[in-house]
Amino acid sequence: MPENVSANKTPSADTAVIGIDFGTLSGRAVVVRTSDGAELGSAEYVYPHGVITDHLPGGEEALEPDTALQHPEDHIEVLRTAVPEALRVSGVRPEQVIGIGTDFTSCTFLPVTADGTPLCLLPDLRDRPHAWPKLWRHHAAQPEADEINALAAELGEPWPARYGGKVSSEWQFAKALQVLRDDPEVYERADRWIEGADWIVWRLCGRETRNAATAGYKGLYQDGRWPSKEFLAALDPRFPSFVEDGLDHPLSQLGSRAGGLTAQAATWTGLPEGTPVAVGNIDAHVTAATARTTAPGRMLAIMGTSTCLVMNSEVPAEVPGMCGSVLGGITPGMWGYEAGQSGVGDIFGWFVDTHVPPAYHDEARERGLSVHDLLSAKAADAPVGGHGLVALDWHSGNRSVLVDHSLTGVLIGMTLATRPEDVYRALVEATAFGTRTIIDAFTGAGVPVLDLTVGGGMVRNPFVLQVYANVLNRPLRVVDTEHACAVGSAIHAAVAAGVHPDVHAASAAMGRVRDTTVDPDPSTTAAYDALFAIYTELHDHFGRGGTDGLRRLRALRNDALTGPRTDRKERR
Amino acid sequence: MPENVSANKTPSADTAVIGIDFGTLSGRAVVVRTSDGAELGSAEYVYPHGVITDHLPGGEEALEPDTALQHPEDHIEVLRTAVPEALRVSGVRPEQVIGIGTDFTSCTFLPVTADGTPLCLLPDLRDRPHAWPKLWRHHAAQPEADEINALAAELGEPWPARYGGKVSSEWQFAKALQVLRDDPEVYERADRWIEGADWIVWRLCGRETRNAATAGYKGLYQDGRWPSKEFLAALDPRFPSFVEDGLDHPLSQLGSRAGGLTAQAATWTGLPEGTPVAVGNIDAHVTAATARTTAPGRMLAIMGTSTCLVMNSEVPAEVPGMCGSVLGGITPGMWGYEAGQSGVGDIFGWFVDTHVPPAYHDEARERGLSVHDLLSAKAADAPVGGHGLVALDWHSGNRSVLVDHSLTGVLIGMTLATRPEDVYRALVEATAFGTRTIIDAFTGAGVPVLDLTVGGGMVRNPFVLQVYANVLNRPLRVVDTEHACAVGSAIHAAVAAGVHPDVHAASAAMGRVRDTTVDPDPSTTAAYDALFAIYTELHDHFGRGGTDGLRRLRALRNDALTGPRTDRKERR
Repeated sequence: MPENVSANKTPSADTAVIGIDFGTLSGRAVVVRTSDGAELGSAEYVYPHGVITDHLPGGEEALEPDTALQHPEDHIEVLRTAVPEALRVSGVRPEQVIGIGTDFTSCTFLPVTADGTPLCLLPDLRDRPHAWPKLWRHHAAQPEADEINALAAELGEPWPARYGGKVSSEWQFAKALQVLRDDPEVYERADRWIEGADWIVWRLCGRETRNAATAGYKGLYQDGRWPSKEFLAALDPRFPSFVEDGLDHPLSQLGSRAGGLTAQAATWTGLPEGTPVAVGNIDAHVTAATARTTAPGRMLAIMGTSTCLVMNSEVPAEVPGMCGSVLGGITPGMWGYEAGQSGVGDIFGWFVDTHVPPAYHDEARERGLSVHDLLSAKAADAPVGGHGLVALDWHSGNRSVLVDHSLTGVLIGMTLATRPEDVYRALVEATAFGTRTIIDAFTGAGVPVLDLTVGGGMVRNPFVLQVYANVLNRPLRVVDTEHACAVGSAIHAAVAAGVHPDVHAASAAMGRVRDTTVDPDPSTTAAYDALFAIYTELHDHFGRGGTDGLRRLRALRNDALTGPRTDRKERR
Repeated sequence: MPENVSANKTPSADTAVIGIDFGTLSGRAVVVRTSDGAELGSAEYVYPHGVITDHLPGGEEALEPDTALQHPEDHIEVLRTAVPEALRVSGVRPEQVIGIGTDFTSCTFLPVTADGTPLCLLPDLRDRPHAWPKLWRHHAAQPEADEINALAAELGEPWPARYGGKVSSEWQFAKALQVLRDDPEVYERADRWIEGADWIVWRLCGRETRNAATAGYKGLYQDGRWPSKEFLAALDPRFPSFVEDGLDHPLSQLGSRAGGLTAQAATWTGLPEGTPVAVGNIDAHVTAATARTTAPGRMLAIMGTSTCLVMNSEVPAEVPGMCGSVLGGITPGMWGYEAGQSGVGDIFGWFVDTHVPPAYHDEARERGLSVHDLLSAKAADAPVGGHGLVALDWHSGNRSVLVDHSLTGVLIGMTLATRPEDVYRALVEATAFGTRTIIDAFTGAGVPVLDLTVGGGMVRNPFVLQVYANVLNRPLRVVDTEHACAVGSAIHAAVAAGVHPDVHAASAAMGRVRDTTVDPDPSTTAAYDALFAIYTELHDHFGRGGTDGLRRLRALRNDALTGPRTDRKERR
């Protein structure tokens, strides 16, 4: 049964679209009125397998450190449960639904057969970790990313500049190369390699399509070309046909129609066969439509377990350490910039789960608060800097502006008087400093950030929003829906269905932003500037060559847990 | 009523001595047989006022950050409860007791009247924080220590070299100067300034004495001289008579007789009036006698809430960053070296109290373990470096080798997979790295460390001992008593009573060391060398000028909590 079902009490007789958001831990479906974006009903399905990090389902062997996989059955189950349930609670009749749109975490990447079946569902490959979809958060391919970056620099490839100078271990080429190196048999068995975003659309409408966003941001597709065969051959003599065999396909613009619902998908979802399906999209990017930030210079930060920052511009520019700039990557016809912070809510959640003592849990229970809210309440009124702490928010690596997932967290300034709420606040501030570092990088590269809108799960926490407004010293526009991604997908569905002429128009009609902004408290500016100066020192010391201590520590850890890295290379 | 009473079942008809250890949180008395050091009975009295950090007893006003005070009534109560109780459970008759010895935390320093009454016990001064005894851990006088160090360097004073180049904010001159600056009226009311070690002996035998150890280590007394009047005048025009009025007095050698028990003290303790009382001593130093480490080159680490390292040598040398070298400071006739780590068990305790989640507390309860032992058990079997963490053990500042209490803790390497036991182990390792840094400083200064003996509360944790043996890559001798300080005081009492000819002989007869050593596991050496290299990098970066980030953070914290430091200076 889907969880967290809710319904709007006044269903409309108007036409509706369904947006489906495939997140890290769950999938959500939302039924949205095409005329004004009203949410008529929604449902969530929490993936029973969650993020697979320790053992394969049914397996016992420990997975390599930094492994993060997903189960494709969990995604199909979202179609079978959350979609019909959202429809049911919305009161909308299936025949009123004129389009379906989807978004997915990215780069979540999987090897499939010629008909799109994930290799991990083949009986003889289900016990092979490399046959499984690698979640965006899978960070075990850092050595391969390092190789790709070194070779691209050596050969003077043109495309790294579009990715802030470095490609990420999270992306398609690093992930596939890791599979080739560590389990060549699985690699050989793959007919195609595909993003979750395009795979789910394949499941819905029975035909392979490829969207312009993931191809550009995660597949290194730029100016009409993929990385060359020669480059792939230089990486590994077994790799040159990776693009041709695994990836290549005509690309589709975001908001266009991928096809119509198959008979099987109609059975899963309870919607009519042939219902238009929009091409796949990336969870954060699709939200620009929800946030009404598709115009140039309007930055959107989707703050959840991680943060993704997206912004359109009319011209390309090279911003150091951003994740990518892709023509048509967010909205057709514009250069879409993406930057990211690989750990945000994940870091707060880790701290709450592992570092908060019983008395705090008891107090939260007594006061009817979540532990997050209790820590926020205890931290909120302290003067800026009163905790004496600064953290680096790299517990899950650094996506922007350093593009290095071997980096790890740092906390300085602890005393015997340091309390959990002090550390919690320092972690919240660290993520805000991370956002500030990214905005500064854009500004420094001549790409002004006109305003900032925030969305995602974090907007439910007023303390977090106020810290961000204060640290960034600018007002925050706030997305006004709990289902920002799914609504964005619904907006794209409305465009694919032809109800609105383009994404800008659909966004204007259907987008959701709060009437009021969260404004900075000017009395905090000086102290936050001082703390940010220390953050920047730490950032540059640990991230930009002052010391390679964090990388060495991580290598020691990996050696200790799995034997020296050379062992892995020797097994190849 | 005293707590934790225990008794040896077979009392001796032999003569006995009583050692009393005045610690940070409690006082302990132990009755010891003079012939062989057998412990015949002991009792502990936990100070009801503990460490006073937030408000004065009965007061409401918040104390300045880094304040740490004690209540002298708590110390007297040890004499009234723990001493008679230890005697009672030992079965020793009062007239069998031929001597009393004491030791005290240091530098714990208080202003008193001409008869030794603490100023804080005067009705008109009890609400004045600066009238109270400042515990060793009081770190609010760092600005004054900085001034003293800067002026001594400017004037080329000879004595800083005896203290590793820097005097500590914990010591007598910094603490008294803070009082003069912040509450000159209290300063004016003091007839004498005295260490707790000498104050308690004054209470016992009714006459003021001053021991050579605290005068040398904490009072800057070297080569027969205190710092000069001119130096004091240059610090502050109101300060020149501080030595003459407050401190000066003939010094007594350790193990000599201070006097006999007064009638009042006899009433308190239940011992005969006139019982010989040894001169005061420092808790860690007195333990060298217990550990049989009074011979040159035998280092003793007393590992408790903090760690004190003491070692005798036949010659003076300048070891950078040690706390002090004092002739007769540990054992008459030898140069005693002292170094220290200001946070050890305190740091582990802070972590357990504030950063361990409910599930761990539940599991500890179910398994009948303390949370410390649970974390130790969970951490013990992991491969070295498997946690990917390195910490700096500066949560309570750094006493050696940096002598800077404005430094604070650092932890690097956290990921979303980091568990409480990982951090706990990293903190234990950090303190072992701190010890290694100190031993390296001695070795580097040409003062070899022949062997290492450990004592103090931490020896109860085999995991901690094994980490230390592995990190230091040398066998550890282990003190074999729970009452190492009190037994050391008893050994000095036996010397003062004339039962043994000197401390060496008394130590040989009455000392307590385990038969077996804790030996290093050579398979851990390489990984610990790699982690220690990262520790050293962090140590030097944050502590030796790579960045002043920790100091700036602390200044920001103090500004945020109490207004800018200039406010305090302006109030003067």
